[in-house]
Amino acid sequence: MSRLAPLSGFPEWTPSERLVEAHVIDRLREVFELHGFAQIETRAVEPLERLGGEAEASKEVYVLTRRGGETAEFGLHFDLTVPFARYVEERQGHLTFPFRRYQIQKVWRGERPQEGRFREFYQADIDVVARETLPAHVEAEVAVVMARALQSLDLPPVRMRMNDRRLVEGFYRGVGIADVAGALRSVDKLGKIGHDGVARELAAQGVPETAAEAILHLARIRSSDSSFHEAVLDLWETTPTHADGEPQKLMAEGIAALGALVEAVNAAVPGTAEADLSIARGLDYYTGAVYETTLEGHEDLGSICSGGRYDSLVAGGGFPGVGMSIGVSRLVSRLVSRRMLVATRGVPSAVLVAVMDEETRAASQSIADRLRARGIACEVSPSAAKFGKQIQYADRRGIPFVWFPGADPTGEVSDGEVKDIRSGEQVAADADAWNPPAEDLKPRVVRG
Amino acid sequence: MSRLAPLSGFPEWTPSERLVEAHVIDRLREVFELHGFAQIETRAVEPLERLGGEAEASKEVYVLTRRGGETAEFGLHFDLTVPFARYVEERQGHLTFPFRRYQIQKVWRGERPQEGRFREFYQADIDVVARETLPAHVEAEVAVVMARALQSLDLPPVRMRMNDRRLVEGFYRGVGIADVAGALRSVDKLGKIGHDGVARELAAQGVPETAAEAILHLARIRSSDSSFHEAVLDLWETTPTHADGEPQKLMAEGIAALGALVEAVNAAVPGTAEADLSIARGLDYYTGAVYETTLEGHEDLGSICSGGRYDSLVAGGGFPGVGMSIGVSRLVSRLVSRRMLVATRGVPSAVLVAVMDEETRAASQSIADRLRARGIACEVSPSAAKFGKQIQYADRRGIPFVWFPGADPTGEVSDGEVKDIRSGEQVAADADAWNPPAEDLKPRVVRG
Repeated sequence: MSRLAPLSGFPEWTPSERLVEAHVIDRLREVFELHGFAQIETRAVEPLERLGGEAEASKEVYVLTRRGGETAEFGLHFDLTVPFARYVEERQGHLTFPFRRYQIQKVWRGERPQEGRFREFYQADIDVVARETLPAHVEAEVAVVMARALQSLDLPPVRMRMNDRRLVEGFYRGVGIADVAGALRSVDKLGKIGHDGVARELAAQGVPETAAEAILHLARIRSSDSSFHEAVLDLWETTPTHADGEPQKLMAEGIAALGALVEAVNAAVPGTAEADLSIARGLDYYTGAVYETTLEGHEDLGSICSGGRYDSLVAGGGFPGVGMSIGVSRLVSRLVSRRMLVATRGVPSAVLVAVMDEETRAASQSIADRLRARGIACEVSPSAAKFGKQIQYADRRGIPFVWFPGADPTGEVSDGEVKDIRSGEQVAADADAWNPPAEDLKPRVVRG
Repeated sequence: MSRLAPLSGFPEWTPSERLVEAHVIDRLREVFELHGFAQIETRAVEPLERLGGEAEASKEVYVLTRRGGETAEFGLHFDLTVPFARYVEERQGHLTFPFRRYQIQKVWRGERPQEGRFREFYQADIDVVARETLPAHVEAEVAVVMARALQSLDLPPVRMRMNDRRLVEGFYRGVGIADVAGALRSVDKLGKIGHDGVARELAAQGVPETAAEAILHLARIRSSDSSFHEAVLDLWETTPTHADGEPQKLMAEGIAALGALVEAVNAAVPGTAEADLSIARGLDYYTGAVYETTLEGHEDLGSICSGGRYDSLVAGGGFPGVGMSIGVSRLVSRLVSRRMLVATRGVPSAVLVAVMDEETRAASQSIADRLRARGIACEVSPSAAKFGKQIQYADRRGIPFVWFPGADPTGEVSDGEVKDIRSGEQVAADADAWNPPAEDLKPRVVRG
């Protein structure tokens, strides 16, 4: 067999690292459920015509063919929004709206492998979707749930930066930009190609220089409350080409909504939210709030949680909603590689029950079962080697306790003693009553 | 968008049904961990040359191509054994042996869709793999863990039927069958094509009639302890063509091992295990115990948990182990369709906090947050509609309690009252102290 080298872009963890990933996923589940989000899972595949929307994403789709077959049957989903939209469309008659769902699954993108880009990764999405109209307060609610979910992981502070598409679109149109989506896609690259790079792209799109300067200026405005509106209005007034009327009205709506959003999120999760008018998000379908989230000190990771408000989840229209998505694998990869979170041990067992000889293995198993009946994970030594060897076996696996059955005077096997192999302390113990210290009961995931 | 009909073979559950699936998976995790199995996850894809082993399985592989690309890059795994073998081979220097791992993931098979056959489904595998030699007691241990895992789901009794490849191979060779693997594959179809069908296949393989009758007779032997050995030895002695020597020695080894196995499993999990000499398992790589498991009253489902002992996990040799795999989706599909397990509600929320008017939404949110701080899942009403409408909203979603904030004489919002909308009972309550009855705290999965 060849190709034993790991495949670039397909991360796989050691058992200890998997504990970190499972911990992150379990915590997210917990917070999502506390806020009333129900879990769904969708199949990994979608019909190819459903995976063709965005030209750029489309190239990244993995197409599936049955071996020896000719016809491509499906593609693997590249996000959780496409399958969620299809799920809602299929089952709309059986769901209760607003529908609050979360979904934590792997997605696949056929990207050229490169540093930090995965081709298979976990995403964790929440969405609230209405049938007809979705109240504005959901834009704050979804951001608050995600901020709390991330905070529950005991990481450095998260910073959630927000903008509003109406503000941006009103302003862009007001200063004379016809192709708002095109300009937005360029501004979205600000972090990558910088001010001059974006300016060049805008010029290439035929955006007049004053308009380009105005929207680049707009992208520098930020505040952690609603005070950004003064800077926006100042800029608007001083941009020579600005046009009042419909665009201005749209912009004013966006300003009011964004101010309320930032203040509501900061009221619930202080110090988290910031209005940042550079936030663009590449995707066309957002129509209100848009979000990006960075981890303090790890801004190079890019956004670990993004999303926005959309008018129509499905192609035919209808089902307005707000959704955000955490890039779980990207986050876990950083947590693991920098040892920001680590598991206290790599195996679930708190206790290794030693075996005196093969004839008394059943007695050792019975001690193990009595411990398990009280929720204490354990395993029985695979061999009846010398006790020193059995201790070594536990030590190599990070199992903190070794239980030594004893032989009582009648020849029966007694419960015997349990040893903390870290301290060497050994005490007589009853398998129906002994407990490890709470912090040793299960592997825990703690700051590294 | 076309093709809204569900794709045959790709099951997707409603939120309530997903709760059943998640419950099953969580329980399996719990039991596996109590027995010291560590979780790993492997990527969904493997190089194609690793997915070509079994001719039949090979055709079922889904091949992946980047859209617009020409070259097939990988295939989706069709089980969890192939990726586990590769994982062990890659990381052998970093794992501690015997390595005890569990793995619960989706697998894909490009089968022609048909009743009860899935193309995407969850499997839950456990394996214990040694570097050099694996003691016989692991064959019992793995079966016991799986029996307990299935029992933890509160299902009808499970029956685990076992055989031993050495017994079968010794007997087959002893009665003059040259192609043991071919004969085994035919006997494996006994349930599907019956005695006469198997006899015809064996004749077509050139197996003499006396030998065919003997192995078909062998397949009728069963017992729930080691007493089967008498029937085997009787049959052996009365089969005219039998040859003593090497095959007989192998058979005797198998008889002793299978007797010890059945008795050990029944000692730990009474009434579960049975020696059933018809159990063949199609796969070539088993070398000792083989297992199949049926659910009482649901034998038509086929085996829900199968596996066996193998000498070499990896192609180059080495890494003997024992593994079993639960077909989680097949099981869940039955549980859901027959309503054998049902969720007490489809949403996590125990409480809907009502909203008096949009001005006091923040007060309602604060009540919700105080409940969440004590682990009570809740959501805030999406609209400030009449209370009757808000109760209806809770009712439609199965949320058992509605919390009504009150206006105290100073105009401040007070905690108010909470109503059990099933009984109509309504009481004044403090959001820092009130608790729902334990059975309402979370959706539970119970017998239907």
